[in-house]
Amino acid sequence: MQELKEFYRNQLLNDTVPFWFPRSFDKEYGGYLLMRDADGSLLDDDKAVWIQGRAAWLLATLYNTVEAKQEWLEGSKIGVDFLEKYCFDTDGQMFFHVTRDGKPIRKRRYFYSETFAVIGMAAYAKASGDKRVAERARELFGKCIEYATTPGLLTPKFTNIRPAKAIGVPMIMINTAQQLRETVGDPRCDEWIMKWILEIERDFVKDDIQCVMEQVAPNGSIIDHFDGRMLTPGHAIEASWFILNEAKYRNNDPHLVELGCKIIDYMWERGWDKEYGGIYYFRDVYNKPVQEYYHDMKFWWPHNEFIIATLLAYTLTKDNKYAEWHKMVHDYSYNHFYDKTNGEWFGYLHRDGTISQTAKGNLFKGPFHLPRQEWYCWKTLDEFNATLV
Amino acid sequence: MQELKEFYRNQLLNDTVPFWFPRSFDKEYGGYLLMRDADGSLLDDDKAVWIQGRAAWLLATLYNTVEAKQEWLEGSKIGVDFLEKYCFDTDGQMFFHVTRDGKPIRKRRYFYSETFAVIGMAAYAKASGDKRVAERARELFGKCIEYATTPGLLTPKFTNIRPAKAIGVPMIMINTAQQLRETVGDPRCDEWIMKWILEIERDFVKDDIQCVMEQVAPNGSIIDHFDGRMLTPGHAIEASWFILNEAKYRNNDPHLVELGCKIIDYMWERGWDKEYGGIYYFRDVYNKPVQEYYHDMKFWWPHNEFIIATLLAYTLTKDNKYAEWHKMVHDYSYNHFYDKTNGEWFGYLHRDGTISQTAKGNLFKGPFHLPRQEWYCWKTLDEFNATLV
Repeated sequence: MQELKEFYRNQLLNDTVPFWFPRSFDKEYGGYLLMRDADGSLLDDDKAVWIQGRAAWLLATLYNTVEAKQEWLEGSKIGVDFLEKYCFDTDGQMFFHVTRDGKPIRKRRYFYSETFAVIGMAAYAKASGDKRVAERARELFGKCIEYATTPGLLTPKFTNIRPAKAIGVPMIMINTAQQLRETVGDPRCDEWIMKWILEIERDFVKDDIQCVMEQVAPNGSIIDHFDGRMLTPGHAIEASWFILNEAKYRNNDPHLVELGCKIIDYMWERGWDKEYGGIYYFRDVYNKPVQEYYHDMKFWWPHNEFIIATLLAYTLTKDNKYAEWHKMVHDYSYNHFYDKTNGEWFGYLHRDGTISQTAKGNLFKGPFHLPRQEWYCWKTLDEFNATLV
Repeated sequence: MQELKEFYRNQLLNDTVPFWFPRSFDKEYGGYLLMRDADGSLLDDDKAVWIQGRAAWLLATLYNTVEAKQEWLEGSKIGVDFLEKYCFDTDGQMFFHVTRDGKPIRKRRYFYSETFAVIGMAAYAKASGDKRVAERARELFGKCIEYATTPGLLTPKFTNIRPAKAIGVPMIMINTAQQLRETVGDPRCDEWIMKWILEIERDFVKDDIQCVMEQVAPNGSIIDHFDGRMLTPGHAIEASWFILNEAKYRNNDPHLVELGCKIIDYMWERGWDKEYGGIYYFRDVYNKPVQEYYHDMKFWWPHNEFIIATLLAYTLTKDNKYAEWHKMVHDYSYNHFYDKTNGEWFGYLHRDGTISQTAKGNLFKGPFHLPRQEWYCWKTLDEFNATLV
């Protein structure tokens, strides 16, 4: 346990973070240049708004929880400034993809840019003590609640003929609220977190078929079409560790521990590839073909989520099953995703574990899931080891 | 050549078409039930509008060019009726995805539903002699021209900060016009076909780097970002055989033959996987990583397009290179995609040629690319063999 803790700390601080920073700070236009190839060379100077917020969060979180390094504080600030200056449309909604100098390329019908801006701003506000940014994070959190609870407020992708809701919204909102609470605080967080956990438990977790759905009808029923049958183990597992994290916050609340572990149990069975190892991206709830072409590829981030979730479950339950699963995902991941030559992880493997493409950063990948995993596992083991002494 | 002709004819009439029909006719609601697994069992009873139009085209084309079978004429009619009755929104734009009983699920910001409705209606109008449907096809073709030539008429996916155009529009429009001309005729076709060919030649074909772009700036320059660098060999090759088809229509016009063959030469080099065989889905123009996750998978339809293009190029030039390439793609395809047990082709292979998923039909795959290839190759060889006698 002591060794594992050191491993995560060392990977984070001497491998993952140095891969990205300081070279990704854009001193000319602000924000970060993150779309990088295996060796760190820049593939594209566009900026993905999700990842601008996520990187600002990472840097401020390192400052808040690891060491008060000026580079991290200033680094977080240039991301937050860029978000505030360039990433909001006149209607208050955020963009998804902007040019290096902050001109909008694409806006999407989701509010994930907003959720990542909330955690980036909140962590930076804590690090800097900037009250205005703290208030801005809270306001934007309020806006996210509005988007999450007002169907039709954002242009929908589908008609209302077959209404559906996705686990992504309550899942991400739990984490957004937890991060906001941990940094600058907001009186709404406790209540909303429990509401979103209840929604996941009531509508998405299916005990009869031992499964967590990605999408359901508004009343929680399964929609027996391609989209409705599609499972995303990575998302469910992300929800599971946010729930276990909440259990910890609430004095190891036994119901939340049970719920989080149940989700891991169900989705380990659905998600782990027994033939090649690694976590599938999508599965069909009835094992039918999945419409999405990359369904059986191994993406980096579900592995980060499984590594966290299994470790956290183990520290909360001391059930050896979770230690074993943790070791299985950990070993698979650091053997297959980790780039021994240049550091950091590749993002995309074929089902058989061979590398599909070498980018370390693009519209969806950047300094977030991997450093968050290494940071969270290090901190979790630090606390856990202390209880063992 | 005689054997190959027989092979395509036999596959089409005794394998591919019987896989789909008559079982896919929806006698209750009209249209076709096409989302089928390997063994033909139904995976989803939704209807993809593109493929409703394409299947109506196939059935009427078989009636028009193979045999005046009542099943094919009636079969085409139930697709055309379904399109007319359920697949148009009140603003005149077509839907993309509807329920079995014709309720709209999704509308997209493209007009490909319209282009496939044009060819379906036009072929049916020829088969049935129905003048009203012929006029409807011409009207809808006019609407497609309007969409294609009026930027901003359809809600754009991106802002106008970095304007771009895709080869898909002129490419599909050439085929739409060729099919309309061949069935019920329209005086606009000849001129527009040559305009679209010129647009592809002028803006998308890059002789200096021996490449055909998928997307360029309005003035034809390369946009050096993820999306702008991405090549789609299957699309370029589809364009190449539409151009060669036009060359044939214009008494083997030597400039069009040269242009079509050049596109094949460039994209064979870019698209053929020298290690595993088969055609890549996407490539980066500078061999950098591609953002789309399934870039190196082997999809069925680019193989259909390469099979047609290389055969057509051979019959027009008698250059043995094209006969060799034809044999390479043909052999790869019928060895890897063809389902020896149930007939028809699988749609999706991993890079190494193993099957990724077993569906024969879904939102994007149905009775179109494969039967069109078998039909077109059969007819092409029929004509070619006649010239050899």
